[in-house]
Amino acid sequence: MKSGKWLGERKIIEIIQSHLDLMSKMSIPFGDDVSAYDIGNGNLAVLKTDMLVDKTDVPPKMSLWQAARKAVVMNVSDFAAKGVKPLAILVSLGLPKSLNTKDNIEQIASGLNAGAREYDTYILGGDTNEASDLVISLSLFGIGKKNKIMLRDGAKVGDIVAVTGLFGKTSAGLKILLSNFETSREIREILIDSVLMPHARLKEGLALKSTGAVTAAIDSSDGLAWSLHEIAKASKVGFLISKLPTAVEVEKFAKCNKLSLLELTLYGGEEYELVLTVKPTLWNRAQKAVEDVGGQLLPIGKVTAQRHVRLEVKSKRHVLEARGWEHFKK
Amino acid sequence: MKSGKWLGERKIIEIIQSHLDLMSKMSIPFGDDVSAYDIGNGNLAVLKTDMLVDKTDVPPKMSLWQAARKAVVMNVSDFAAKGVKPLAILVSLGLPKSLNTKDNIEQIASGLNAGAREYDTYILGGDTNEASDLVISLSLFGIGKKNKIMLRDGAKVGDIVAVTGLFGKTSAGLKILLSNFETSREIREILIDSVLMPHARLKEGLALKSTGAVTAAIDSSDGLAWSLHEIAKASKVGFLISKLPTAVEVEKFAKCNKLSLLELTLYGGEEYELVLTVKPTLWNRAQKAVEDVGGQLLPIGKVTAQRHVRLEVKSKRHVLEARGWEHFKK
Repeated sequence: MKSGKWLGERKIIEIIQSHLDLMSKMSIPFGDDVSAYDIGNGNLAVLKTDMLVDKTDVPPKMSLWQAARKAVVMNVSDFAAKGVKPLAILVSLGLPKSLNTKDNIEQIASGLNAGAREYDTYILGGDTNEASDLVISLSLFGIGKKNKIMLRDGAKVGDIVAVTGLFGKTSAGLKILLSNFETSREIREILIDSVLMPHARLKEGLALKSTGAVTAAIDSSDGLAWSLHEIAKASKVGFLISKLPTAVEVEKFAKCNKLSLLELTLYGGEEYELVLTVKPTLWNRAQKAVEDVGGQLLPIGKVTAQRHVRLEVKSKRHVLEARGWEHFKK
Repeated sequence: MKSGKWLGERKIIEIIQSHLDLMSKMSIPFGDDVSAYDIGNGNLAVLKTDMLVDKTDVPPKMSLWQAARKAVVMNVSDFAAKGVKPLAILVSLGLPKSLNTKDNIEQIASGLNAGAREYDTYILGGDTNEASDLVISLSLFGIGKKNKIMLRDGAKVGDIVAVTGLFGKTSAGLKILLSNFETSREIREILIDSVLMPHARLKEGLALKSTGAVTAAIDSSDGLAWSLHEIAKASKVGFLISKLPTAVEVEKFAKCNKLSLLELTLYGGEEYELVLTVKPTLWNRAQKAVEDVGGQLLPIGKVTAQRHVRLEVKSKRHVLEARGWEHFKK
């Protein structure tokens, strides 16, 4: 819901925020990926709520089990980006009459449970209502150390920009699911799987936080370009991206369908990599920490004082637009 | 969503629960009004999430401001029933295109803020999505002392059954709003106001918890009869209700419209009184604590070993049915 003739998500949140009394001494600023309440002794209760709505978040071919699991993944991903372990999940379920059968509810429950268990946490409770859409609204709870949570606003000039994986698979996968684009069978499966079975980079986020190397972090659920712009805005810096982190399957898919690699890599979304800035002096430590938990940390550029978000590859320059993933409509 | 040809709320929650791995040593059982996570040192993180959906929770004449405020009240009411102070609120907002204007969003934000400030807490963050219905899903966080939270399962034979106010105003008010029932202008305003501007009994709940007198508690959002049945089931006891706690305006409304007082008082809903069981030896202390914060505690019956929920007034006996409020449909 980033554009169109209606107010976009960012604008809506701005309006809401401007009409709220803000708690004094907020430990995490309004608008970051999670919220926090200071519970004393240097600890923060870390809180997050986000809803999955089927008509914008559940593509064709995604089962109810997968949709429920995805609702967990998308919330856990925000905890991952902040380096906080989720300890408990609550569910508020809006169920349309058309889905109100034992079998469907079992699928949803099993998907929620699978997602929770994948990230070593539990569903503790919840509520259910009738709604026109399938709405799976989750709230997550965790505990973080004060001043140790990876926020969006700490990037410093000279920091290394890094990502935890390659991009573009979900945007390619969605093109296959929504518009019947073609590719080889093997690649097709990988791309579709990236949409139907996303993964949150929780172990990477927790490992990175422990190094103290990360100065700013966000997840890439609204697309790589959007995520970079969010960090740039919050940290009052710019980026020079020198490597486009495109997945090899996406290169093949783009070639076969004559699609723009830039577009697929930068302006996709619904993918849950972490986008981070890292102190150069601690780069090796950060990279090793991620590799030790089976992940990867890929450098893609530098933080600049000039407040543009640019890409320069093979002497070609692009200015990255501040646009991101628009939810699809069924 | 208690009846009809689709699965009811209770059945849906049962199915979901049976497909979840449950965390060992849960501090509050699955299915109580709130959930909890043990954070050590005798403290529990208390969590709640529930969604307001306009087509079932927002009656005609209720403004967006009132609807957003009600979303806060209905969640705070569950904290009130457990004797836990809400410390922070997060919002997940599903917004239909028809409501996506600056003015509407401002109304929603101001209503959320008003609700939060009424109960001395703040909205700390949130997210927004497009949805077919207006969906306001809130999650609340608070801290409670282990083994000190008022649950549903502690009622003992001989305890006094009590409520924090009189019943029936919202069911009468809804009849006026939904079906154009008539009454005098003054009463009409009081009844409608009870629907549009509900209040959670937070100060009463906190005062009661501090006395140690309460053995079981629930809020009456699904109706008085339903609430009694819920405590009876969780505590494995029965009730003999000897006084029907009907509001005087409801008596007049019932007479004027030839409606059943029992029906209006027992089987309404969307009202947020507390229904409690109290140790007889500590009754005076409990009543004084509530009166000291400007509330009232009204005895209406006794806990019995016989596991029925009965009403006996003027030698007439009724068995209270285990049915409650059914959401209205626009």
